[in-house]
Amino acid sequence: MRRAIEIENKNTATKGKNIMAGTKSLFIPGPTNVPHRIRQAVDLPMEDQRAPDLPTFTLPLFEDLKKIFKTRSGQVFLFPSSGTGGWEAAMANTLSPGDKVLASRFGQFSHLWVDLCQRHGYDVEVIDVEWGEGVPVEQYAKRLAADTGHEIKAVLACHNETATGVTSDVAGVRKALNAAKHPALLFVDGVSSIASIDFRMDEWGVDVAVSGSQKGFMIPAGLAILCVSQKALDARRRADTPRCYFDFEDMIKTNKDGYFPYTPPMSLIRGLRVSVDMLLEEGLENVFARHRRLAEGVRRAVDAWGLSLCAMEAKWHSDTVSAICVPEGFNSADVLKIAYLRYGLSLGAGLSKVAGKVFRIGHLGDLNELMLMSALSGAEMAMRDIGIPVEAGSGVAAAEEYYRHTARPIDLSLDTAAAR
Amino acid sequence: MRRAIEIENKNTATKGKNIMAGTKSLFIPGPTNVPHRIRQAVDLPMEDQRAPDLPTFTLPLFEDLKKIFKTRSGQVFLFPSSGTGGWEAAMANTLSPGDKVLASRFGQFSHLWVDLCQRHGYDVEVIDVEWGEGVPVEQYAKRLAADTGHEIKAVLACHNETATGVTSDVAGVRKALNAAKHPALLFVDGVSSIASIDFRMDEWGVDVAVSGSQKGFMIPAGLAILCVSQKALDARRRADTPRCYFDFEDMIKTNKDGYFPYTPPMSLIRGLRVSVDMLLEEGLENVFARHRRLAEGVRRAVDAWGLSLCAMEAKWHSDTVSAICVPEGFNSADVLKIAYLRYGLSLGAGLSKVAGKVFRIGHLGDLNELMLMSALSGAEMAMRDIGIPVEAGSGVAAAEEYYRHTARPIDLSLDTAAAR
Amino acid sequence: MRRAIEIENKNTATKGKNIMAGTKSLFIPGPTNVPHRIRQAVDLPMEDQRAPDLPTFTLPLFEDLKKIFKTRSGQVFLFPSSGTGGWEAAMANTLSPGDKVLASRFGQFSHLWVDLCQRHGYDVEVIDVEWGEGVPVEQYAKRLAADTGHEIKAVLACHNETATGVTSDVAGVRKALNAAKHPALLFVDGVSSIASIDFRMDEWGVDVAVSGSQKGFMIPAGLAILCVSQKALDARRRADTPRCYFDFEDMIKTNKDGYFPYTPPMSLIRGLRVSVDMLLEEGLENVFARHRRLAEGVRRAVDAWGLSLCAMEAKWHSDTVSAICVPEGFNSADVLKIAYLRYGLSLGAGLSKVAGKVFRIGHLGDLNELMLMSALSGAEMAMRDIGIPVEAGSGVAAAEEYYRHTARPIDLSLDTAAAR
Amino acid sequence: MRRAIEIENKNTATKGKNIMAGTKSLFIPGPTNVPHRIRQAVDLPMEDQRAPDLPTFTLPLFEDLKKIFKTRSGQVFLFPSSGTGGWEAAMANTLSPGDKVLASRFGQFSHLWVDLCQRHGYDVEVIDVEWGEGVPVEQYAKRLAADTGHEIKAVLACHNETATGVTSDVAGVRKALNAAKHPALLFVDGVSSIASIDFRMDEWGVDVAVSGSQKGFMIPAGLAILCVSQKALDARRRADTPRCYFDFEDMIKTNKDGYFPYTPPMSLIRGLRVSVDMLLEEGLENVFARHRRLAEGVRRAVDAWGLSLCAMEAKWHSDTVSAICVPEGFNSADVLKIAYLRYGLSLGAGLSKVAGKVFRIGHLGDLNELMLMSALSGAEMAMRDIGIPVEAGSGVAAAEEYYRHTARPIDLSLDTAAAR
Repeated sequence: MRRAIEIENKNTATKGKNIMAGTKSLFIPGPTNVPHRIRQAVDLPMEDQRAPDLPTFTLPLFEDLKKIFKTRSGQVFLFPSSGTGGWEAAMANTLSPGDKVLASRFGQFSHLWVDLCQRHGYDVEVIDVEWGEGVPVEQYAKRLAADTGHEIKAVLACHNETATGVTSDVAGVRKALNAAKHPALLFVDGVSSIASIDFRMDEWGVDVAVSGSQKGFMIPAGLAILCVSQKALDARRRADTPRCYFDFEDMIKTNKDGYFPYTPPMSLIRGLRVSVDMLLEEGLENVFARHRRLAEGVRRAVDAWGLSLCAMEAKWHSDTVSAICVPEGFNSADVLKIAYLRYGLSLGAGLSKVAGKVFRIGHLGDLNELMLMSALSGAEMAMRDIGIPVEAGSGVAAAEEYYRHTARPIDLSLDTAAAR
Repeated sequence: MRRAIEIENKNTATKGKNIMAGTKSLFIPGPTNVPHRIRQAVDLPMEDQRAPDLPTFTLPLFEDLKKIFKTRSGQVFLFPSSGTGGWEAAMANTLSPGDKVLASRFGQFSHLWVDLCQRHGYDVEVIDVEWGEGVPVEQYAKRLAADTGHEIKAVLACHNETATGVTSDVAGVRKALNAAKHPALLFVDGVSSIASIDFRMDEWGVDVAVSGSQKGFMIPAGLAILCVSQKALDARRRADTPRCYFDFEDMIKTNKDGYFPYTPPMSLIRGLRVSVDMLLEEGLENVFARHRRLAEGVRRAVDAWGLSLCAMEAKWHSDTVSAICVPEGFNSADVLKIAYLRYGLSLGAGLSKVAGKVFRIGHLGDLNELMLMSALSGAEMAMRDIGIPVEAGSGVAAAEEYYRHTARPIDLSLDTAAAR
Repeated sequence: MRRAIEIENKNTATKGKNIMAGTKSLFIPGPTNVPHRIRQAVDLPMEDQRAPDLPTFTLPLFEDLKKIFKTRSGQVFLFPSSGTGGWEAAMANTLSPGDKVLASRFGQFSHLWVDLCQRHGYDVEVIDVEWGEGVPVEQYAKRLAADTGHEIKAVLACHNETATGVTSDVAGVRKALNAAKHPALLFVDGVSSIASIDFRMDEWGVDVAVSGSQKGFMIPAGLAILCVSQKALDARRRADTPRCYFDFEDMIKTNKDGYFPYTPPMSLIRGLRVSVDMLLEEGLENVFARHRRLAEGVRRAVDAWGLSLCAMEAKWHSDTVSAICVPEGFNSADVLKIAYLRYGLSLGAGLSKVAGKVFRIGHLGDLNELMLMSALSGAEMAMRDIGIPVEAGSGVAAAEEYYRHTARPIDLSLDTAAAR
Repeated sequence: MRRAIEIENKNTATKGKNIMAGTKSLFIPGPTNVPHRIRQAVDLPMEDQRAPDLPTFTLPLFEDLKKIFKTRSGQVFLFPSSGTGGWEAAMANTLSPGDKVLASRFGQFSHLWVDLCQRHGYDVEVIDVEWGEGVPVEQYAKRLAADTGHEIKAVLACHNETATGVTSDVAGVRKALNAAKHPALLFVDGVSSIASIDFRMDEWGVDVAVSGSQKGFMIPAGLAILCVSQKALDARRRADTPRCYFDFEDMIKTNKDGYFPYTPPMSLIRGLRVSVDMLLEEGLENVFARHRRLAEGVRRAVDAWGLSLCAMEAKWHSDTVSAICVPEGFNSADVLKIAYLRYGLSLGAGLSKVAGKVFRIGHLGDLNELMLMSALSGAEMAMRDIGIPVEAGSGVAAAEEYYRHTARPIDLSLDTAAAR
């Protein structure tokens, strides 16, 4: 049902060219807004990727990136690619065709990861879970306990399913592996969680974590960021999936001296340096708390609208993206279209199984309360435009009150300038 | 009364450095947000201000600027200075010490203009008007009619008083001059109106109009933009206020060939080119309509809050800035301080007579509905923080509904992308 | 032999921090200098890669890119990756493990391409040619004529070997294929030629051409740009090299509607749009002529220095990079080190077989005569610093005279500004 | 005589649009090249000039600026204006109409300063000196000694005459004043010297120093930077030149708290912060030494060309700009025109008395050796194009050798990257 097309164009004030003033509002769950400081780091003149002083830049960056993954022993890799390429690098360097992989599917991105594994010839055992839930830790536990022959070589966990706004319990998966004393490698898709939601490489015994530049790292798209345990690195010697571009070996050999096996996207890597600086300056736990607080404000707004999240229980609530269900009889694609075309607001679409049923608000990266008010207000307006019965201002009011009562401490000693 | 300092700092989630993520919200009545396209034009490598091809850039710009002032016969001047320098240029080139000037005062900026005239030795006859009203056209009319000896050489009209959010009737002043057949020069301060609110140099018989780069022109501060009638240009021959930097004569001689008498701020002038392009591409009438519509949404919010504007009647309502009165017992400076320090929102302060009594929302330049929602929401939050009894979300809701019912026509033929 | 380390540090004027003022000079053969206009296009706010109006941007870009490859029937693909990833995409989509590939090796990049093919399990027949020569067209012709059973599935030609400054005769390879009526696919590495040196996809019957963003396209590194013939596209149905990230199929399905199968690096793609605009505005043939002229100036300088190029004959001369041999007894790495550390000049190193023997001047992308003078002058200074007997100013003088006698037409009607 | 117009357009390679690739070379004596770091500081989003935390930015900047002027007791003022406005501020705040001023004139800028004083009604006693010499210290000494009645209120010294490339002896002027025990205020035009050539406010007893943003400060044009002694500040109480925009009083009152009397050009002031940081990080003495060394290389080139400087003796040589005399029978304007239109090189024109006779190379700000090679080479080419008999490469060679023998110390411990 497409009520949007029945909306008439009401504005008769503006004739001629339909020019939109001001900045667009970007609230998709990635790419996220690039902070000014990072944009400037990215916008440097080109440089010589073999300059003798480059290692003084790259080597400390590799070290500092480990802090973001909370690892001491893992190794970080930067590939010029999207997150999908990161998945490919993760699997191709550690598995061989025919290897058994345990995975679960509960959204478009966990689905696509399974698909990638299948295309590379791995034997993927998929547990389908209702969209709105996350990694089925108990089922994983049972399956791993049953696999006494250790046929399963890899266990996949999508930490944050971007399509449904669901965060899974990676620590639980580790517990299941440990309980079964199972040696399988643990792979985590952290594309939309790492640097925004707590992630603990070493503590959770993650073997390969995949992230991307354009979400919590707040850099333009184009860089896959991986962290790999020594155990997974060892596995590369047995893994015979054909690979070259994504080969860890070439990276290891050249990264060691601060260089890369082929032309690195230095613009993004310069941006990554500032991203890591910003994350560490703010403090990772503060970054996570900030995301949680902003997310909670959005959830209060959804409640006030009388709508529900795709995530089925509070324990699944994602702090980086909320997938919001529209009532029966409405098409969420209409909300998106109106929001974008009429109000310059980009929201995330419902994908695959939830197409038409949900729209998503990305609330990760470089954001604050008032920026989110644009998104909430724009969503209200677009929903009301197509007839969804939410009250004008209701979501905004709920978020305002939540943010007010959890507001940042301020230095009141500064005197407001009074004179012109 | 200062309730703000009683507000406790509530957030205990964030420890350590108090870092604000995201972009600040700038809603002062200038400088305004610089559109990306203009920022890029400003951010050019330095250039040779005597290059042989410079006139191919400057001469058409001088011509196109006339369109913004709606003049055919006037001449535009660009001085590296603030708007205050623009005032000085306006007076110094046309008047002599001792000349009689008729002016009115109803806000901080009309006050400062009078002050500048007095410091230059002109004999200013000031009509004081209550702050919240504008140029007293009838009093002007009487005074001009009475001045049969034409002692008055200049009549000043502040088109848009930025301190109180009041727009005056310049056409009315012209009518008064014409009715009295009075030859005095008509000076208009259009710093916060020109390029945002309708202004008609020729039709209204304005002799000198003063504007600045950082308001409707959406360029960084640093450039005064004047438009001068032939009549006022002729007056420079008799005017013996000492002058050099702001001398029209040097400008006329060099501008004629596309150059400047001293190093011009080419960055800003390159930005001005794009500003003029953007204004003409959108169409001046559309620009004015957009400002009016955005301003009206703000006024609806003020109504919903149960507050009143400093501007006393609808006819004085400014479409570029609203000065909002806080209730008795509250200090508007507290609203500003909380808004800025807690929510990253810059509002305009109450100045001079209305210090502590009003706060201002600038709604001019490169803005849209959702950006304004940040301002309205932040103002609600800050007001509630200090105890002003406005309802959460009420202003936002009123603005939402107004904007929805006057929304831009959209092209619904574009299909929303459905797949990942 | 390392004379450089004997060079004493002579400057006693500057104490304390050794800060280098001014801009560095980048004359490696990629990444190349990004023109201001492209840098600004790259430096846009992030955007929604699924926005309904994105196809109005992407679809015409795909079309215009064909003009750069001089193809009508080919299809262009953009992968977030380096050129190496472009090679991988080219092979993986068209070949199956065990397929026979005919290749030649005469520099580091033709070598690495062969290596990539071998790692993917293709059966590569390599013809080794002396470094300084190019694709051995006659040997190819013989081998193809002999392959009456058409076992050879792919023929590789490195159009411009960046390591040695050698351009090969791709048209000749096509002639050899045609003469033998051989159906093998023709693959061309045009990473450092396309958009700088004439390349003709359709006329030369190229099946897959691989290029990258950071050379002639003048964009930051991170985008592989491929062009694929219909014949090669058909081959993807039979090719069973495992692939997912680089799969043409996913690209074809989504590109058709103007979208991408995963998050595209929109910053680079926005830059690519301006790159293509600039190339087409200047005219491809003018772009090629400009590169030829600038390269010839460099070659005149090398002559004047009494040195020789790595490229053995004039027919191999590359118009995008010159590899210059240092005399016996000198280490070209010392030239690079001195040039970079003392004069801020990045030259290209000698790689692999020619390490220590050559240094390279990249002369492609957004360059002009006077920029090259910095490179030539810096090279002279660095060579003299380590004792290479070239005459000060000799190379610069030769280039000056060549450039003067082939200078651009100018419009002398513009009057030089005479006044201050 | 205009040989340039006889130059035929030789290049037949490039048809169609005459597009110049690469970056233009800017070697005028200001505006100078803005370093990337400063450009980024300038390119910030607009900000609230009355924000409560602004003083934490402005107050330390005012303090640090004193270091650039080498003053402890002086006060720095920032006016949105060109250097000419700086002159006006200097005079208007300290003198009254009719006051006697001692000045000298030996170039276009010392001339214009005198002109400005005359227009403001001061009684200027001008000593005309041959262009190519500087402030006539001995004549000043005599005149001051003779002025026992202390009628002279102000003594002007143009520290660096930009039109002729002449640096004057300001310390000598102070000695002359002291010798005569003369209380006149000492005014210095340091627009093209301060931050590039040693300047000592306190040691030399300078009362008002005027500089601008676009020379040694390396910021875009638009900011006059003044430093004023307490003695000169006191003089403002007696000075009755009418003033408002440039009034020190308003600045003093608001600067004290970190604010400004009208909208400041915050973009430039943010850039100024980074400029001051860069100057202090490098160390002022190192900055001066760098300018001296770069200038000396240019002078060696001029010698090698067989040409002479406008500056008549070594003691007058300016380290920021060299004015180079073309031989009889040639028009220096032709050199400029060819350099700009054919090679994209901006040189400084000969102004007024030396129009057609000299061209100028600005060598100040963010420059290094190889950048200067572009200028020297381009000048050689342009001179040869119009027939001036300089040897190709001769100037470049001389500069190369000078720079090589005075090169910066380098850290040879860094290993050159050898692998791809």
